[in-house]
Amino acid sequence: RQNIQKAFEKSSLLPATTLDGKTLKVYGNIGGPEECPGVLGNGGAGVGLYRTESLFISRDKFPTEEEQFQVYRRAVEAMQPNPMIIRTLDLGGDKMVSSYQYAQEEENPFMGFRAIRFCLEHTDVFKDQLRAILRASAFGEVQIMYPMISSVEELLRANQVLEEAREELRNRHAAFDENIKVGSMIEIPGAALVADLLAEHCDFFSIGTNDLIQYLLAVDRVNDRIAHLYQPNHPAVVRTLERIMDVAREHKVPVGVCGEMAADPIYVPLLYGLGAESISVTPASLPEIKYLLRRMKLKEAQALAKKVARLSDPESIYMTLSAFYAKVMGDLFKEESES
Amino acid sequence: RQNIQKAFEKSSLLPATTLDGKTLKVYGNIGGPEECPGVLGNGGAGVGLYRTESLFISRDKFPTEEEQFQVYRRAVEAMQPNPMIIRTLDLGGDKMVSSYQYAQEEENPFMGFRAIRFCLEHTDVFKDQLRAILRASAFGEVQIMYPMISSVEELLRANQVLEEAREELRNRHAAFDENIKVGSMIEIPGAALVADLLAEHCDFFSIGTNDLIQYLLAVDRVNDRIAHLYQPNHPAVVRTLERIMDVAREHKVPVGVCGEMAADPIYVPLLYGLGAESISVTPASLPEIKYLLRRMKLKEAQALAKKVARLSDPESIYMTLSAFYAKVMGDLFKEESES
Ligand SMILES: [Mg+2]
Ligand SMILES: [Mg+2]
Repeated sequence: RQNIQKAFEKSSLLPATTLDGKTLKVYGNIGGPEECPGVLGNGGAGVGLYRTESLFISRDKFPTEEEQFQVYRRAVEAMQPNPMIIRTLDLGGDKMVSSYQYAQEEENPFMGFRAIRFCLEHTDVFKDQLRAILRASAFGEVQIMYPMISSVEELLRANQVLEEAREELRNRHAAFDENIKVGSMIEIPGAALVADLLAEHCDFFSIGTNDLIQYLLAVDRVNDRIAHLYQPNHPAVVRTLERIMDVAREHKVPVGVCGEMAADPIYVPLLYGLGAESISVTPASLPEIKYLLRRMKLKEAQALAKKVARLSDPESIYMTLSAFYAKVMGDLFKEESES
Repeated sequence: RQNIQKAFEKSSLLPATTLDGKTLKVYGNIGGPEECPGVLGNGGAGVGLYRTESLFISRDKFPTEEEQFQVYRRAVEAMQPNPMIIRTLDLGGDKMVSSYQYAQEEENPFMGFRAIRFCLEHTDVFKDQLRAILRASAFGEVQIMYPMISSVEELLRANQVLEEAREELRNRHAAFDENIKVGSMIEIPGAALVADLLAEHCDFFSIGTNDLIQYLLAVDRVNDRIAHLYQPNHPAVVRTLERIMDVAREHKVPVGVCGEMAADPIYVPLLYGLGAESISVTPASLPEIKYLLRRMKLKEAQALAKKVARLSDPESIYMTLSAFYAKVMGDLFKEESES
């Protein structure tokens, strides 16, 4: 057991290079600058998901642009020279904001007034955040991503608010990265279905598997009574991922994946095999994932993905992925008994 | 205005035959036998959706098989010789069952323990209903449909409970239609994505647009704050409908459509044009829909559907459908000014 831990730790400090020589991007998720050392210490090559809600929750006023800028800047500087994707405000759903005037009981908060929906109706709040992120981009590679995009119209409106924020900074002569990359999360089935249209108006996609799966299957992911129906190995999930990746490849838009599915080593080969350019996971999961990636070929993962995308039941999807994982990891246990 | 009403009423008593000679199936929705005269009086050719929840709600005990049988039989007899599709219990979501022991608060009831999920865990309740429906099938053409199917596994389990119900009736020598048709609702995006797999295990599909749209777009359809995001004219909705119909055609499975979209005359030509075999609507909507269908060609609706399925924004989808509707209905207003 200790040896396994050691093997993982050793891998975490090495690049995530597969046996066939592809170096894959494995990022960490954070909730604030204080978590950057955890990402770096576990071998993350950047931050694929910076959740900014903690700045907004359990306070009675929204943070100012300046307050946010200081925090984002600290995070960006801590991660240098690695990239950092900052997700704009994803309030609502299970992230409550009871202290705000905006709070209001909803029957189905997961399908409610959340994330980009909130931001597009409170553009003052949204623009404060966008200016803060833009200013932080003067201190390292920052990318912006919008949560809960469900249509081209929303993406265009978000981009327009971003353009206003840029213009305001230009007028102030404030420094920021004029070429900052902007991405759309794909976490609503409708967005997956119009990924070809969204691709025209953003620089990258980030698939949020937690929400995507729950909407695809109409299963609240925090409801215990139906937990068994929340299946990352449902063929509809695999087909949707495949479709998004295929469309993105066609439109030359790189795709990242975040969510619990990305942090589960059983599913990691599938995601890269389908065409993910990066995954972003909780820092503690980085070592095992890097260990796994360093012991497999990307080509094998691609063959696996092709096979799994043709399977029609959750059981065989899971078994096929597990078998691949076991085969790759087998070495570890061999090494252990040898040592 | 009165003339329009009269024109609609006149149509309601004539067959829903298009100008190119196709007689389309237009059914009515009911909540109990007392609503059958409304369907017939408005020219419905059958019942495409019999919602059985009213028998279960606001009581403190589930109805017995016998009680249900008497009610279903009355409905079937009232509709003779027209077909009737009975939907099995769709409790949960916004149809509350506070009086039952099964009731439990859920954070997101629309993505919760509802419909077939409830039935598959309470097979006693489910089987009572299935036996009652089966027995009613001895008195006229009855079909069964399951709500909220999200996977092949659920459909197979539901079919297995149905087979047990059949076997019990055989042992009792009770009469029922041995060839009763069994359908799966397609109202969860995941089901739409595996429609090819579901088609192997049922006789027909019924698309429930209300739920399908809300999950596709992650928009609670009864939440006013985001009502503007609930768009039947979202390209993801049109693409999903097209995909279901294409797969169903390939697998020779007829498709019905229910939900508010089916009752909106703006969308009716699209649905038939995409390949719907039937629609089922609130009885009051039947006359206008039949008027419309009798004044259009199915061929034109097919061309319209082909065109609309290639459009990429909600606005032009809506405008194109509206223009078609206005063109077809134009006659009505002409007739009126002439009269
Ligand atoms: Mg999310
Ligand atoms: Mg429904």
